[in-house]
Amino acid sequence: MANRILWINPVSEVVAFDRPVAEFINSIKRSDTQVDVISLKRGPMHLNYYYYNALILGDTLHQVKRAEKEGYDAAIIGCFYDPGLREAREITNRIVIAAPAEASILIAAGLGHRFSIIVASDKCIPKMYENVVNYGLINRLASFESVDLEVNDFQKDKTETMRRIHKAAERAIHEKFAEVIILGCTMEFGFYKELQEELKIPVIDAIVAPIKYAEFMIELRKNFGWGHSKICSYKSPPISEIKEWKLSDQYPDMKGLW
Amino acid sequence: MANRILWINPVSEVVAFDRPVAEFINSIKRSDTQVDVISLKRGPMHLNYYYYNALILGDTLHQVKRAEKEGYDAAIIGCFYDPGLREAREITNRIVIAAPAEASILIAAGLGHRFSIIVASDKCIPKMYENVVNYGLINRLASFESVDLEVNDFQKDKTETMRRIHKAAERAIHEKFAEVIILGCTMEFGFYKELQEELKIPVIDAIVAPIKYAEFMIELRKNFGWGHSKICSYKSPPISEIKEWKLSDQYPDMKGLW
Amino acid sequence: MANRILWINPVSEVVAFDRPVAEFINSIKRSDTQVDVISLKRGPMHLNYYYYNALILGDTLHQVKRAEKEGYDAAIIGCFYDPGLREAREITNRIVIAAPAEASILIAAGLGHRFSIIVASDKCIPKMYENVVNYGLINRLASFESVDLEVNDFQKDKTETMRRIHKAAERAIHEKFAEVIILGCTMEFGFYKELQEELKIPVIDAIVAPIKYAEFMIELRKNFGWGHSKICSYKSPPISEIKEWKLSDQYPDMKGLW
Amino acid sequence: MANRILWINPVSEVVAFDRPVAEFINSIKRSDTQVDVISLKRGPMHLNYYYYNALILGDTLHQVKRAEKEGYDAAIIGCFYDPGLREAREITNRIVIAAPAEASILIAAGLGHRFSIIVASDKCIPKMYENVVNYGLINRLASFESVDLEVNDFQKDKTETMRRIHKAAERAIHEKFAEVIILGCTMEFGFYKELQEELKIPVIDAIVAPIKYAEFMIELRKNFGWGHSKICSYKSPPISEIKEWKLSDQYPDMKGLW
Amino acid sequence: MANRILWINPVSEVVAFDRPVAEFINSIKRSDTQVDVISLKRGPMHLNYYYYNALILGDTLHQVKRAEKEGYDAAIIGCFYDPGLREAREITNRIVIAAPAEASILIAAGLGHRFSIIVASDKCIPKMYENVVNYGLINRLASFESVDLEVNDFQKDKTETMRRIHKAAERAIHEKFAEVIILGCTMEFGFYKELQEELKIPVIDAIVAPIKYAEFMIELRKNFGWGHSKICSYKSPPISEIKEWKLSDQYPDMKGLW
Amino acid sequence: MANRILWINPVSEVVAFDRPVAEFINSIKRSDTQVDVISLKRGPMHLNYYYYNALILGDTLHQVKRAEKEGYDAAIIGCFYDPGLREAREITNRIVIAAPAEASILIAAGLGHRFSIIVASDKCIPKMYENVVNYGLINRLASFESVDLEVNDFQKDKTETMRRIHKAAERAIHEKFAEVIILGCTMEFGFYKELQEELKIPVIDAIVAPIKYAEFMIELRKNFGWGHSKICSYKSPPISEIKEWKLSDQYPDMKGLW
Repeated sequence: MANRILWINPVSEVVAFDRPVAEFINSIKRSDTQVDVISLKRGPMHLNYYYYNALILGDTLHQVKRAEKEGYDAAIIGCFYDPGLREAREITNRIVIAAPAEASILIAAGLGHRFSIIVASDKCIPKMYENVVNYGLINRLASFESVDLEVNDFQKDKTETMRRIHKAAERAIHEKFAEVIILGCTMEFGFYKELQEELKIPVIDAIVAPIKYAEFMIELRKNFGWGHSKICSYKSPPISEIKEWKLSDQYPDMKGLW
Repeated sequence: MANRILWINPVSEVVAFDRPVAEFINSIKRSDTQVDVISLKRGPMHLNYYYYNALILGDTLHQVKRAEKEGYDAAIIGCFYDPGLREAREITNRIVIAAPAEASILIAAGLGHRFSIIVASDKCIPKMYENVVNYGLINRLASFESVDLEVNDFQKDKTETMRRIHKAAERAIHEKFAEVIILGCTMEFGFYKELQEELKIPVIDAIVAPIKYAEFMIELRKNFGWGHSKICSYKSPPISEIKEWKLSDQYPDMKGLW
Repeated sequence: MANRILWINPVSEVVAFDRPVAEFINSIKRSDTQVDVISLKRGPMHLNYYYYNALILGDTLHQVKRAEKEGYDAAIIGCFYDPGLREAREITNRIVIAAPAEASILIAAGLGHRFSIIVASDKCIPKMYENVVNYGLINRLASFESVDLEVNDFQKDKTETMRRIHKAAERAIHEKFAEVIILGCTMEFGFYKELQEELKIPVIDAIVAPIKYAEFMIELRKNFGWGHSKICSYKSPPISEIKEWKLSDQYPDMKGLW
Repeated sequence: MANRILWINPVSEVVAFDRPVAEFINSIKRSDTQVDVISLKRGPMHLNYYYYNALILGDTLHQVKRAEKEGYDAAIIGCFYDPGLREAREITNRIVIAAPAEASILIAAGLGHRFSIIVASDKCIPKMYENVVNYGLINRLASFESVDLEVNDFQKDKTETMRRIHKAAERAIHEKFAEVIILGCTMEFGFYKELQEELKIPVIDAIVAPIKYAEFMIELRKNFGWGHSKICSYKSPPISEIKEWKLSDQYPDMKGLW
Repeated sequence: MANRILWINPVSEVVAFDRPVAEFINSIKRSDTQVDVISLKRGPMHLNYYYYNALILGDTLHQVKRAEKEGYDAAIIGCFYDPGLREAREITNRIVIAAPAEASILIAAGLGHRFSIIVASDKCIPKMYENVVNYGLINRLASFESVDLEVNDFQKDKTETMRRIHKAAERAIHEKFAEVIILGCTMEFGFYKELQEELKIPVIDAIVAPIKYAEFMIELRKNFGWGHSKICSYKSPPISEIKEWKLSDQYPDMKGLW
Repeated sequence: MANRILWINPVSEVVAFDRPVAEFINSIKRSDTQVDVISLKRGPMHLNYYYYNALILGDTLHQVKRAEKEGYDAAIIGCFYDPGLREAREITNRIVIAAPAEASILIAAGLGHRFSIIVASDKCIPKMYENVVNYGLINRLASFESVDLEVNDFQKDKTETMRRIHKAAERAIHEKFAEVIILGCTMEFGFYKELQEELKIPVIDAIVAPIKYAEFMIELRKNFGWGHSKICSYKSPPISEIKEWKLSDQYPDMKGLW
């Protein structure tokens, strides 16, 4: 039976990236994987501020929880800030939760000793740096390199995007000893192929990585029972408490989830 | 003119802690400080799960932003997880933002070399540990010590609470070389006094610390212009973007804020 | 077409673990994976000393190189010390190289925040600790726990082995806040299943992990070109140099490899 | 009643900075604070060598102890190397001890994520770096930047000083991601105001910071009993021992202190 | 020609340790080394407080400088806190400066992977810990272990001292994985021999180590010109400045030194 | 009686460096030291790849073990990668084992605060970096600087070599605050003298350092019993095991060693 993955673009559906993202995912997923792509009913158009991450957090988590109820095998929070990754693992029991940054650096860690992450702008760095620290891999980070572009411009002038990423990657390789390049924004999707042919080193795509990682983790969970540990960090809140407090009456999109 | 501080209990107002918290704050604030205490219209009763932190994040930030618009000099996010601390600094321009954990450890850092934090349960540790790492002071941390109590039970059987905190503090002092004790939950308020008389070392109260810290930071901002830096980490999202995306129409409590 | 993996037990074939290891692997590999298991023609019976690791290093690397020449898609160096992992990636170009410790901790990193590794004896710890440091994940390590057993006794009195591992795991969970357990010796294979049912947290098997990881990495290489980076750390020695120096005439088992 | 602070310029009184420093302090202290400024009877003119720090250490500590005996509420050791900070806390019981570097970085830590320190010359860096490590905040340090000036020249050609600091700060902001600037020498006093107007980020003055910090700590001690912890690091030597050894007869300026 | 070393007991000569220390040193020095042992004219009887370290700092440095002038090849500051080590290297040009803690851990580093330091009491730990951090070897430290003894009691009831050190060492070996033991007080001299016979691992004596290290460094300086680097950290203060300020008139024991 | 040291060039004897290396060593050793220099019967001509290190590992260790049997007091593994350093300490009981990188950085640590290592090419850095981390001194490392030369070219055009090293050292000193320079390849031998006259800071030679360090450690072992600790990290494999497995029959050069 097919493995079902829900890819959540944690931004407003007005951005209208679902279709190109879905097409791209369909071109790279395993044949026995089925992926649905959704965005949020409301929300900002990108997440390059802490605040925007905060705004979409609740809605994203409820989509994740809904995915679990609907029988998905994995939910992917499709933004390189990995918003809600730990929270999602905390409130679910059975489903695999993946996100671009964690998946990308875990994959990169097996490919070369040090990796650099190409980001949209300097503003991205503090939070992403913190994530790499919390994921425990900061000593493998060669550098962050900014291309100074708006997130939603990555797919507009592709030649210019390509030129900037290429330049940033060269800087990472020659000045910071990066051995692997990570494209640190899901909107940089698709560029990896041409880049890695030019650079001759692996270039990790922020959509391919979590899809593949999720497929991998689904297999591990189904065959070996290796799901997210439910003690300490990801221990779930007690449903009794959630019901007693009638939280579902208070947060509209929580209806029917608990 | 009085300095005005808004203390936000980032939990449901049903918990009904506003009054005791306000009374306690009034007993420790400077005479020229005026503090208002509020809770949220909706939300969980405590924040001991990532998910609960996520649920209250948006509402809390909007209360903070509202506080700035209403002329408060500082807003304090009254939970030891410091939920939304960076986000709040990002979306405001003028107001001081404080929170218990950051304020407590910055104060403790000037009082002794190593500090221990007494927490409600083991579940608190991963996120709080991460906060101490991100605040940069992990090398000053002696230990976390759990008293294995529900947050909302701290103020019920005070003798038992006292007994447990005392025992945990002794452990921290004698086995982990702690020189300062931090009571790592706002619901542990008030116990510091008796404890520090017994232990003969400073015991930081998680309500006193952020109130005093906020008064201090207000003075620094008013007299020396030392407010939260608005480049890089705390750079605000552009209002034009927020308006263009009509975010206020999407998030009910955002009305009139931007 | 099937993916072909060579599992190398980097110890003397006299140990005669090939058959049980092969049987176990066949029970957990993907159906489209074909795994061959070999040992070395010569060598010690276990690798619990630096010296034994050194003795088998050359022969193991040449088996890896041979595997590449024979068209294998991956070679796994089947010992939790990961002997020759970097060397093997350096001398190959196309093949995936995996090893138990790296694979296990990269998998564990996505399952819980902190992991503990159950090892045979204290002597194992210094080198394994160093590996975890070099892999960059030391901040995710909760502890090493020794069961004080000879490597080759793990599969003898299984009840006693189980009892000891269980006890060590409990210590890791309750005293060191481990959220995932890694069985840090390939000879601990098979125990994970019962253990994780009892402990209710993921228990990583040191044979399953690298097999699954290798299958994963093969897919990434075949479909996305993500192979081990060949600059800096894993840059290959020039064949011209190897030929000029006539190294193949000097090391008997190097014949025909370069 | 007014809080009394003693500011000790730990250099020879021949330098004659007491008056300008006192004037500056009087312009920034709270109205209910009274500050006296003194220098040492003997000593070097600046402290930019370990040796000079060593020379003034005893005399400075005795001034601190004297301040405690004379009823001061705080003593500030007015040099950015913070000479004798721990020693002073060790030998006193009641009085607040503050110093520029510690106060500045604790304040900076609440204002932005990373701070840079502008120092007189490269020679300053090793010891100050060590201080930041020992204060536990090295991960918040963006960089040290030298302006290559003699300490006692800062206040001479103010335009040139300003030009150099400005240039160093720009470097810190644009190349090292500093979000807060600290002027790492008390002789850089007064420049912060104009600088922060130009740079649009907080610029910490090394005299204002410890004065404000001392006022803050006095309040904490008086109202909440939060003084320097007297176990372990700052535990005082026993007076009985000091008397028995007749130390006061041996060190002239120790007379009457113990 | 004999190499001349000055061992400075940086405590009051009233302690009267010069003779036993000299006898011990004469039993362990090279035959072509000549060692003189002195104490200070004034000072405390031990240095177990920051303050006592501060009191003796100036006098100790001047003894060091005097030793250089008198043609000694090395000066050793004979206390495990290494007071004035950097300062002494800063003010001298030709002479080797050594101290017990630095010498002991550099020697231990070549003998085993992790070392533990046996100290008199818990009060010793914060400063010594800081030294190990500043020397850069904190990751090799297994632990500090306290024997809870007064420094000046070590040589009184030797059986009891031995018993306590032995017990502390066993704890370090079996619970903290120490592979080398360092006796972290010069007053523990002489015990190493019997201890290492019992423990079967190297036990570093805090007097032997700096003597041997000094002999070693003298040879390196004489034959290869490898003396303390005089840029940055140990750059000397300009003599012109010292003369211009007439420092020698101000500090009695500085007469004739500059 | 003379101390006997065996210097092992762990490369093929075809390289023919034994004579110049021996001559150089004879010019710098103590008069009561006798040094023999050998190379391997087989092997690559340099070790700038992990693989080459692996190839020579077994033969090198057996030479070390043989040296112990033949009564040498120390064996030095003469390559800056320190191949087999820990392994050699593990399999021997009495003999001192030294290697260039460890010896050089332990010596440098006493000469200045931060050191830079001048290496042949960027490829050297990852493994050497790892060594510095494992030796525990990474916080004292200012930088690695590459001169982009083949190892075996260092002694060819000496003027060009000198020019490149000089330039790299200047970069280390002025841009990375290095206070000591280490020549990170044994083939850079002899250049230190002129360099340190020009640079005015200590320049460590990678042959002098381990020779002197070995002489030092021999003295410590002979007079004080301070040999490599034989618990945990360097605990020897049991000879009974080695015999039982008949390893000597399997590895030709192991004959007669166990």
